[in-house]
Parts: sequence; C-alpha cells; structure tokens
Amino acid sequence: MAVYTEVSDDDLAAFVATYDIGSLLSCKGIAEGVENTNYLMQTDRGQFILTLYEKRVSASDLPFFLNLMEFLAEAGIPSPTPLRGRDGKALRTLCDRPAAIITFLNGMSPKRMQVGHCAEVGTALARFHNTGADFDMSRPNGLSVDAWRTLFNASAARADEVIPGLAETLSKELDFLEANWPDNLPEGVCHADLFPDNVFFLGDKLSGLIDFYFACNDFLVYDLAICLNAWCFERDNSFNVTKARRMLAAYRRERSTSDAEIAALPTIARGAAIRFLLTRLYDWLNHPEGAFVKPKDPREYLSILQFHQRVTTPGEYGID
Amino acid sequence: MAVYTEVSDDDLAAFVATYDIGSLLSCKGIAEGVENTNYLMQTDRGQFILTLYEKRVSASDLPFFLNLMEFLAEAGIPSPTPLRGRDGKALRTLCDRPAAIITFLNGMSPKRMQVGHCAEVGTALARFHNTGADFDMSRPNGLSVDAWRTLFNASAARADEVIPGLAETLSKELDFLEANWPDNLPEGVCHADLFPDNVFFLGDKLSGLIDFYFACNDFLVYDLAICLNAWCFERDNSFNVTKARRMLAAYRRERSTSDAEIAALPTIARGAAIRFLLTRLYDWLNHPEGAFVKPKDPREYLSILQFHQRVTTPGEYGID
Repeated sequence: MAVYTEVSDDDLAAFVATYDIGSLLSCKGIAEGVENTNYLMQTDRGQFILTLYEKRVSASDLPFFLNLMEFLAEAGIPSPTPLRGRDGKALRTLCDRPAAIITFLNGMSPKRMQVGHCAEVGTALARFHNTGADFDMSRPNGLSVDAWRTLFNASAARADEVIPGLAETLSKELDFLEANWPDNLPEGVCHADLFPDNVFFLGDKLSGLIDFYFACNDFLVYDLAICLNAWCFERDNSFNVTKARRMLAAYRRERSTSDAEIAALPTIARGAAIRFLLTRLYDWLNHPEGAFVKPKDPREYLSILQFHQRVTTPGEYGID
Repeated sequence: MAVYTEVSDDDLAAFVATYDIGSLLSCKGIAEGVENTNYLMQTDRGQFILTLYEKRVSASDLPFFLNLMEFLAEAGIPSPTPLRGRDGKALRTLCDRPAAIITFLNGMSPKRMQVGHCAEVGTALARFHNTGADFDMSRPNGLSVDAWRTLFNASAARADEVIPGLAETLSKELDFLEANWPDNLPEGVCHADLFPDNVFFLGDKLSGLIDFYFACNDFLVYDLAICLNAWCFERDNSFNVTKARRMLAAYRRERSTSDAEIAALPTIARGAAIRFLLTRLYDWLNHPEGAFVKPKDPREYLSILQFHQRVTTPGEYGID
C-alpha cells in the first residue's frame, strides 16, 4: 500500500512507447500491493497497471509469476495478464527495477466479508487449482514447513515483546507441525496469498483474482486453508462456520477433495496460520521507523492458530 | 500521499448512489494529496475522484473551496469540479468525514520541470487570477505574515536540531518581513499551493490545476512568488533564471502587474519561502513515528529564502 519508486516523465514515456497501448493520459500511484510499486495508467486505449517490482520480489521468480498470469488469463480465470511489448517481452526494466504492464480488472476488494463472498472465493480457488494443473512451470513454496523454523528463529528472541509467551507457543507448534506435516497430499499451483485484498467483486460476483507474487507449488488444500483463515474469521477473531461451510462446499463442487486432504485440514490450517503469524511477527519487529506501510498485527493469526489447535474433526469446519 | 480512511463497501455504495454517476466498477486509493484521502473511482459513466477531507482541512472552509472549484471550472479554468448529488448538494459526509466527488482530469504532474512547464504555469496562474476576480466568496490566508511568528514559535526551540543557526535566521527574517511586508498590493483569490504536484500536463500543455485546499485571498504576486519558488529552482537549489523569466513573462502577458508588485517581488518571495519553510519545519519536528507520509525537507526552503535575501533588483528574476 505505497508508492516506493517515483518514475520520471521521460522514463515513463519511453517505457510506455515500447508497448502498443496508445498515448498516456494519466498515471497515478495506487495504494495496492504491499510489496511493489503500482501505478494506474490511463491511455486513449484503456486502463492498465504498471508494476515496478521492489526488492522483496525475487527477479528470478518473475518469469514464473508473469507466465502463470498469462496462462491463467488465457484459460479464462478472471485475472490480470501481463502485456507484451512490441519486442514480444512482458518483463522489462524501469528505474533499475524489473517492471511490467498488466491489464486492469474492474472490481473492488470487499472490506466486509459476507458469506456469499466466501462461496465465490471457494469456487474461484478450485477453478484456479484445476486450471493450474496444466501449467508447465513450477516454483517451490519458500514459506512452507521447511522455512518456518528459520523464520521463527529470526524473531524468537523478541517474540514475547509482542505477546507474552509467544516464543514458547510458536516453538511447540513448530515441533508439532514438523512432526505431523503430511507429505502425500495432492499438489499443484497455489495462489498462496488469496486474502480479501487480492480478490475483486462487482456486486456479489467475483470479478478478479490479483497479486500472484506468492504463487508456488504446494498442497492444494494448503491454499484452501489460507483462504479459510483469511475469509472465515470475524473481526473479533471468532470463527464463522457458515462462511467456512459455504467456502468449502463451493470449492468441493468444482474440485473433489480426497479423504486424506479433509483429514489433514486441521493440521494444514495450523500451518497456514503459523506462516502468516511468523511473517507478520517478523515485519512487526523489523519494520523501519517511519515506514510507509503499517505492519499487520500478528496477534490476529495467533488467535486463528489457537482455534485450529482445538479442532478435533473436520466437521468443525462445516464439512458434513 | 496516502490513504487515511478506508471506506466500507456498503458505505461506498450508499454514497455513490446519492449521485447520478452510474454504477461503480472500481475504486482505488491513490497516492495524491498529502492532506486528504483520495480514491480514483471508475463507473460505467467515467472516472471520478472521491475525496474524504481529513482533519487538516477545516470543514468550515469547504464551501469556499468547493464553490471556488465549481466557479473556476465553469469559467473555463482547467480544474476539477465537485459533482452535485441528486439533492443538489456537493458536500456531504462519508465515514464521519466531509466528503465530495469531483471530476477527474487527465494529465500528469511533471517530475522534471522544464522551461516550457514554467511558462504554462505562468499563463494558467494569471488566468486563474483574472477569473477569480469575479468570485464572490473570500477566505483570509491563515498562513500569511500575521501567522508566521506563531508558527515559528511552535518550532523555535528545536529548529537548530534541523539546521544549526536556523532559529536565529528565522527570527531575524521575520523581523524583516513584519517590518517590510507591503499592505497595498493588488489582492485576489490565490491558489497558494501551486507546486508541480498540483499541476497536470498532457505532453507540453498544461491540462489541469488541482488541489485548491489552500486557496485564499492574498496579494496576487504572493501566489506568483510561491510558483517561482516551487518551479524555478533546480534540485541543487540553484535558481534557474530562464525558467523564472519565462514564467513571469507568460504571467504578465495575461495579467499586467503594477510597478509596486514588481518592486515588492523580492520581499514577497522571501515571505513565500518562509511560509513553506515554517510549515515544513513544523511537520519535520512533529510528524508521528511510523507516519505514512514522509515529511518534506525544510532545508530546501532555507536555501530558497537565502537566494531571495541576496536579490537586490527584480531584474535578477529575469524581468527586463
């Protein structure tokens, strides 16, 4: 949610001229995407998003992300697609940063998530998973179970400053997850960050999935668990089983889940919770003073983790 | 340059429905305007700016600002105009804040100011001044010579933390300005903040003046001096007399200036410099930790002030 890189007039004009998108009418920095600089550009041919990839996105991963977006959009998933310049390239350089122009999607992220939103997300996620099965690139999930201990160690000494007892809670949870993390569930391309900020709606209908810059290969049910956590807890951190029931049912109508996936859901959901708890904790402890971006509160994800720790059967998620 | 207030889906939909502007397709927080929250909205009828006025803008001044914008736009000044809702009102409330929807202007603020930009700004400012003569509301300038001492006192004790010796420099300069500030120059409606951020261009042509939320009645040449300071100094703080010559000549082609205005220009330019130096100094010393908005460096305006202190004749501004 910030503009990190200011682009000079000349640089912008030269960049836009490498595409066949008409002449520039306006270009505004938008508060979208925590990791990158985004501009909403208007030309006489329409609207486009200009993204400059800042340092948290690894340049070597960009071909995976951009090819995935192009693949998904061509397959009919409502998602932005990178434009190719006159030279056929989608990825180029602007202000010494990797940069791309992507298509603009109508729609707005919901601020108050409703049951109907959750059902739409379940459907869209399953279609994304089904479609992704034919995508021929892959990228390991750098923020899965193998990475959590290292991430935890980077914050462990100061974790109790944020929540007393947090270091011990996290350490024990990691012991559990490392011992119990499945190794044989169906895998595929995951969005891995499908929070409400990254889903657009027009009225009640989902109109777009955006921000594929955490996409990776992992258990598909892990992606579903990330959505459960992001969409089905209320502001007071209570779990809304009606939302979960609708999301899971909608997902399973589009993609049938195995018994093993459903049985693993409580463990997977704990993993999906600790992944965001750990990155939020790190960002909370390490954000620079005066940073443009306010770090997200890690406490929300501790509460979500504790909910899943108490779950004994998948029925508690509304699965019959 | 920040989004301060998040608007919920329901509140936004209800707000938009009070206008005859079609249905909402997208709404993005934009990094424009330091003082207010701005969203760029797209509907099936076009693009609009939604502004929520945050606490630095006094609600009682909003009728002046919005009526001025409407007056100027109707008179052909390229500026945004507030829309009136179905009830005829332009100013209403959203998220407990005064809020308005204004028209969207094409164009981009220059990042590298060229001589041609300065000439366009001179012309546009003079036309704005000529047009404003028929506007029937007025608002005193709360940031003019009467206010500077108070503003200085609020920072005086810590001014030397920013620049050693600054407190004494400012105190002496205020003595000079208070003793020598003119009282009989032509007055009128001033923009009073016409920095490059607030001027749009399409190619070489000025396409819009925006952000009228400092507009007030004051000496017209004071407004011109603000522009000289904002547009005619290079990044190394050197004065570019070619830019000033072009700006002043363009201005004077549209509005003839009196001998008294030209003679007063060095003093007025010192005042225009200290006004921004004092507010930047205050913001620099008082911005909250972790604020979204990075305060602007006051040192730039000390250098500009010192330039004007050395000016002995208006010829040094490129006036023949």
